[in-house]
Amino acid sequence: MKLGLFVAERGHHIAAWRDPATELERDVGFSYYANLAAIAERGCLDFLFNADIGGPSGPYSAERLRRTTGASRVEPLTLLAAMSSVTRHIGLIATMSTTYCEPFHIARFFAGLDQLSGGRVGWNVVTTYSEGEARNFGREIHLSHDERYERAKEFTEVVLGLWDCWEDGAILADRESGIFLDPAKLHPLDHRGDHFSVRGPLTVGRSAQGQPVLVQAGQSEVGRDFAARTAEVIFTVQQDLDEAKEFYADVQNRAASHGRPPNAIRIMPGLVPVVWATMAEAEEKYDKLQSLIHPDLGISLLSHILGFDLSGYPVDGPLPDMPPSNAQQGRQKLVADLARRENMTLRQLYMKVGGVRAHLTLCGTPDYIADVMEEWVATGAADGFNILPPTLPQGLEDFVDHVVPVLQRRGLFRTVYDGTTLRDHLELPVPVSKWATGH
Amino acid sequence: MKLGLFVAERGHHIAAWRDPATELERDVGFSYYANLAAIAERGCLDFLFNADIGGPSGPYSAERLRRTTGASRVEPLTLLAAMSSVTRHIGLIATMSTTYCEPFHIARFFAGLDQLSGGRVGWNVVTTYSEGEARNFGREIHLSHDERYERAKEFTEVVLGLWDCWEDGAILADRESGIFLDPAKLHPLDHRGDHFSVRGPLTVGRSAQGQPVLVQAGQSEVGRDFAARTAEVIFTVQQDLDEAKEFYADVQNRAASHGRPPNAIRIMPGLVPVVWATMAEAEEKYDKLQSLIHPDLGISLLSHILGFDLSGYPVDGPLPDMPPSNAQQGRQKLVADLARRENMTLRQLYMKVGGVRAHLTLCGTPDYIADVMEEWVATGAADGFNILPPTLPQGLEDFVDHVVPVLQRRGLFRTVYDGTTLRDHLELPVPVSKWATGH
Repeated sequence: MKLGLFVAERGHHIAAWRDPATELERDVGFSYYANLAAIAERGCLDFLFNADIGGPSGPYSAERLRRTTGASRVEPLTLLAAMSSVTRHIGLIATMSTTYCEPFHIARFFAGLDQLSGGRVGWNVVTTYSEGEARNFGREIHLSHDERYERAKEFTEVVLGLWDCWEDGAILADRESGIFLDPAKLHPLDHRGDHFSVRGPLTVGRSAQGQPVLVQAGQSEVGRDFAARTAEVIFTVQQDLDEAKEFYADVQNRAASHGRPPNAIRIMPGLVPVVWATMAEAEEKYDKLQSLIHPDLGISLLSHILGFDLSGYPVDGPLPDMPPSNAQQGRQKLVADLARRENMTLRQLYMKVGGVRAHLTLCGTPDYIADVMEEWVATGAADGFNILPPTLPQGLEDFVDHVVPVLQRRGLFRTVYDGTTLRDHLELPVPVSKWATGH
Repeated sequence: MKLGLFVAERGHHIAAWRDPATELERDVGFSYYANLAAIAERGCLDFLFNADIGGPSGPYSAERLRRTTGASRVEPLTLLAAMSSVTRHIGLIATMSTTYCEPFHIARFFAGLDQLSGGRVGWNVVTTYSEGEARNFGREIHLSHDERYERAKEFTEVVLGLWDCWEDGAILADRESGIFLDPAKLHPLDHRGDHFSVRGPLTVGRSAQGQPVLVQAGQSEVGRDFAARTAEVIFTVQQDLDEAKEFYADVQNRAASHGRPPNAIRIMPGLVPVVWATMAEAEEKYDKLQSLIHPDLGISLLSHILGFDLSGYPVDGPLPDMPPSNAQQGRQKLVADLARRENMTLRQLYMKVGGVRAHLTLCGTPDYIADVMEEWVATGAADGFNILPPTLPQGLEDFVDHVVPVLQRRGLFRTVYDGTTLRDHLELPVPVSKWATGH
């Protein structure tokens, strides 16, 4: 089983900062994150992951800015670079968007950090869906969902191409003759496409794991296909075992149809573990956290997820009819379907999907949580989980100290790191350089 | 006196990698740089600085790619982020170019790292002059020197504006009421200019030092004026005391004419210390390093610095007449003037300016080197120096263990860190938020 820690400020529950267990007094500076990394590494987790959602330019109501920690967002690349030097084993996956950045920069950031860290890095490829963010980059009108994926596809091709410009053995470092490098083993990319024109080569060669691991998270049709074509790890949002199995099989089939070998992708749904000694106490603990969501905040959360302004609608009434939106199409449909299927009020819906953003939430004993995790992996619904502790650091300690040992006793999870790179941990192959095969 | 370490792979002398003292066997991974950082911090230096020159897209001849370590370049931002967590005191200055990047990204990277590191970060603002690099970013024709500075000026204004979007005290974190932040204390930038349109606010507030330190290095007319207008630290290339004094006075006068207070800028020429117990031995040590520069490499170095292809010209003949170039105008003029004034052959010239890129080189005893440093600071030619050890790590250890103690005994340099931020070390004021003064 593969396990990652999704890093967040204070925790993944939207009201976590109001919980005393989140150590609000402690400054969220480097030592805060280093502590999370140390706990995760103690638990032998595969990787730390930092997303890049929110910030004050996101589609935040004043209410949401006021009542959450979301306005202040740590920058994922610099955070994970800083954590690379105080960890020894764990992988480091950061999100950077393809929508307003240049592929040469992203290729360089991740390949460089991959070299420095001894091959422990992954890039989570995303497209940016917020119109507020577009206005930070000189654009008034945001790209459409499909246009963003067209750009992302070419962007990713360029990054992969740049990661493969240096043949292994390019560096000779022969002091006697004074020859450091064989320039014939550096290959320009010479990419000319619809969105980018990039010459290369990159400023750095291959790392201990060949190149960074490619991670993706799209759930819409076009996002799913994009992921099946190129991703090595997929983060998903799944609450239902059967739907998760359907997604898993669909992605593996699509990957096969693109000519990829079986087992080329690790599919890892988000999982929010609420761990306690008894089932009832765990539920109670979670209810207490849920009750800290102010209704005004709950409504603005739903509005964000659905891309539709729900303020003014009665909090104890049903979800109204809504037009389709340019926001994350996959998640919007998932949440609207859930509300209609289970006939939920807006309050019930925001508690269900707003508290921890629609991720699978398991409240219970360590054995119960391990049971569900084992079932999902055994039945082909997941290869492992991206862990979103509801509060941090407490929720992570609960998971690492109580759930991980159960998984280890069952032989489902490593007890020591037996490899050195992120690819080792995830059992992903080192990509073969195209120059090695004589192309 | 202020002292920084200019970090480089193996050392700043172009042939350093051929010297046994550069530990060629040791992999240039994270531990290599962490070791340099530890030595620099042992010497109480003000900062580590990492530039962003070269890479295989730079204007490198095949000869230069083959005979130097320049094709592989560590990425400055991720390197310094990684070093931030294994150092406690020292400042961290990274170069990022304004020519192919978005100001929102740069503002965020540096402000975020400044927060994580407790206020130890500086940004070295540069423009990119290489046509090869332009082709990595979809441009066939490179911007002219003046166009680059026009863009850099607006770019820097936007970054400074983004760093001042959050009022101090914006975060309330009141668990009882559930109010985390006062949105009225977040101010959009709403910048609309010739090159950029950026709404803001940034994703992060002010750091322990208010905002990152602004560093610049231009020596041309327009570069000098740009630096005098906005820089807090200026890196320069000076070999001659009188010229350095003239530059120092000129920049301070220009700064005053832009309404800046006296002492607002730290001017720090590059300094290559070649330290040995006797003057003769130091000279000998340096001659040995110089002799490791292959003539073909020497000629291609000169061609790069001067922006003019010198291959084919006799290595023991004089510098030919050359047309003006679109490359770094400041340095080109400096080097050409030097050659004509001292009637040098190409070989003499490449040894003089190619070995350590025209920086002031002092070969001698610790006392001799300290004497010159003291004279430069005492006579108004510099506020301190950016140290470029000819070899690394050995050249840095020589400086820290032999020259720094002399400076300390003379009362010219700190013996312990008495502040926590880069601004503390450099004795630069914390910029006042425009919101604090009621604008």
